[in-house]
Amino acid sequence: MSVSEAPRVLVIGAGAVGSFYGAILKRAGCSVSVVLRSDYDAVAADGFVIDSPLGDLSYRPEHVHHVDDIHSGSAQSAPDIILLCVKILSTADRVALLRPWVGPHTRIALIENGIDIESALAAAYADNPLLSCVAFIATSRVAPGHIQHSAYGRLVMGTFPHGIDANCRELADLFEAGGIRVKRSDDIVAERWKKCVWNAALNPLAVLADGADTETMLDAPGGEQLVRELMREVCAVAAAAGYPLDADRVIDGNIEGTRNMPGFRNSMAQDYLNGRGIELDAILGNVIAIAQRRGVPVPRLQTVYVTLRMRGF
Amino acid sequence: MSVSEAPRVLVIGAGAVGSFYGAILKRAGCSVSVVLRSDYDAVAADGFVIDSPLGDLSYRPEHVHHVDDIHSGSAQSAPDIILLCVKILSTADRVALLRPWVGPHTRIALIENGIDIESALAAAYADNPLLSCVAFIATSRVAPGHIQHSAYGRLVMGTFPHGIDANCRELADLFEAGGIRVKRSDDIVAERWKKCVWNAALNPLAVLADGADTETMLDAPGGEQLVRELMREVCAVAAAAGYPLDADRVIDGNIEGTRNMPGFRNSMAQDYLNGRGIELDAILGNVIAIAQRRGVPVPRLQTVYVTLRMRGF
Repeated sequence: MSVSEAPRVLVIGAGAVGSFYGAILKRAGCSVSVVLRSDYDAVAADGFVIDSPLGDLSYRPEHVHHVDDIHSGSAQSAPDIILLCVKILSTADRVALLRPWVGPHTRIALIENGIDIESALAAAYADNPLLSCVAFIATSRVAPGHIQHSAYGRLVMGTFPHGIDANCRELADLFEAGGIRVKRSDDIVAERWKKCVWNAALNPLAVLADGADTETMLDAPGGEQLVRELMREVCAVAAAAGYPLDADRVIDGNIEGTRNMPGFRNSMAQDYLNGRGIELDAILGNVIAIAQRRGVPVPRLQTVYVTLRMRGF
Repeated sequence: MSVSEAPRVLVIGAGAVGSFYGAILKRAGCSVSVVLRSDYDAVAADGFVIDSPLGDLSYRPEHVHHVDDIHSGSAQSAPDIILLCVKILSTADRVALLRPWVGPHTRIALIENGIDIESALAAAYADNPLLSCVAFIATSRVAPGHIQHSAYGRLVMGTFPHGIDANCRELADLFEAGGIRVKRSDDIVAERWKKCVWNAALNPLAVLADGADTETMLDAPGGEQLVRELMREVCAVAAAAGYPLDADRVIDGNIEGTRNMPGFRNSMAQDYLNGRGIELDAILGNVIAIAQRRGVPVPRLQTVYVTLRMRGF
């Protein structure tokens, strides 16, 4: 990525999250193209409309590709940077999804939720730099190609599996030039575990509780205690995986932070209530798989997970 | 209860279960009256229609009372035997429900599901004999006053809290005279725990799994293992409460017995799917309360219970 030339960015999965971070890189001077499925027609015709507290982030991508189009990339046409922002569903083969687009010098950056979501990509594209990002953002798709960014947007970013290399620094600089805050972390997997404490405990539980909001869950008889115990199980798995957290402090902080907000439906609860797929394995199943490999008992997490599998998720 | 006179029986809560056992005692020569709520009009007009493999068990009760009628019993008019067959919901005050009907010599017999469901009645009616019954029966209400008895009907019966006294023997003889099998048990609480292993594990879980049938639950990934672990937690509580079970044998038998039947929706799943109340505390909450008093960890049972409370049960 030379300074003289605008980096070519391809956002794969340009939904509410991907199109927002594409807009940020566009503001930083990048050339931004996208790969879409459901909103292809709307975006190909009119580009993205993005309302944001940062201002009007609407933009027209350089190229709009449909995910099912046959495409054979060449080293010349391959993007400098891929932002992979798809939901991680059991039906999605992300390695195959990237295949047509990855060139020999393409940096791959994930902005996705979950634990242990990098290793398959790292193995398949061992020669490409892999950056892993955790997004803290409130954004939603209100209509085809129409995104409402409500709040936040901060990224935590690192090189996978650890460290902060030049690729990471350059991409972080671009995001900051586009107007968002970025924390560079030399231990991004630890950051994922930290976020996972909340997500693995409260996201699937909200689906099992039929889309209940955070207040309903915490205020039910025994609710806060169960949530704390689920979080403690996640902390135990993190520690066994080599990422010890200060469990008491993390759990107290999570509960307090959640109680300080008005009750809200988390993203998985919203996906569930809107009939969309849920990222059950990325958020919880992978945690349980690691727990089993390491011999960590997670009876509560497993009860939630298996019961959701009984419901067909 | 003299042999020269037909025992006067009052069935309180004459639904699918109560009206059936009322019919059995009617066949044994008893005078049977009932207390009803929802099906009062139909039964007051036409009595019960009961289709059964035992034959036509239809009958017209001696008296049909509405549960909300003001009634002040006298020693003369009080029944010899009350069969209490109401669902045990958090909204139901069973002690108060019995109050107008219990005379000084009335025997009280419960035909109800759950654990620790006798003690409040034993305390409130300390001078009345208390018999506790566990029913193994497949019966359902298909229309007001119209009951379909499909199979089974066996009772396990004992004097509460233990033993088999003369009252128990007499009532057991009456049920057998009416055509069903009765097992007299000198440790009825142990019998409740034995039945509870299946019920506490699979009934609330089926509600949480959105009314899933037994096959769906057992065949989901990790499903049978979770069910076995839930059953093991119940066995641990039973043992701590003084009712040790051979856990391996009981669990294997439960799983095998369930797998030998075609997948079916259990009674709580059916109540849930039909918008009726579920006996969550009688079946599961009371088990957890005992576990907490005895210091027995029940993480999986608690996860199921608390999540159902989050859903408003």
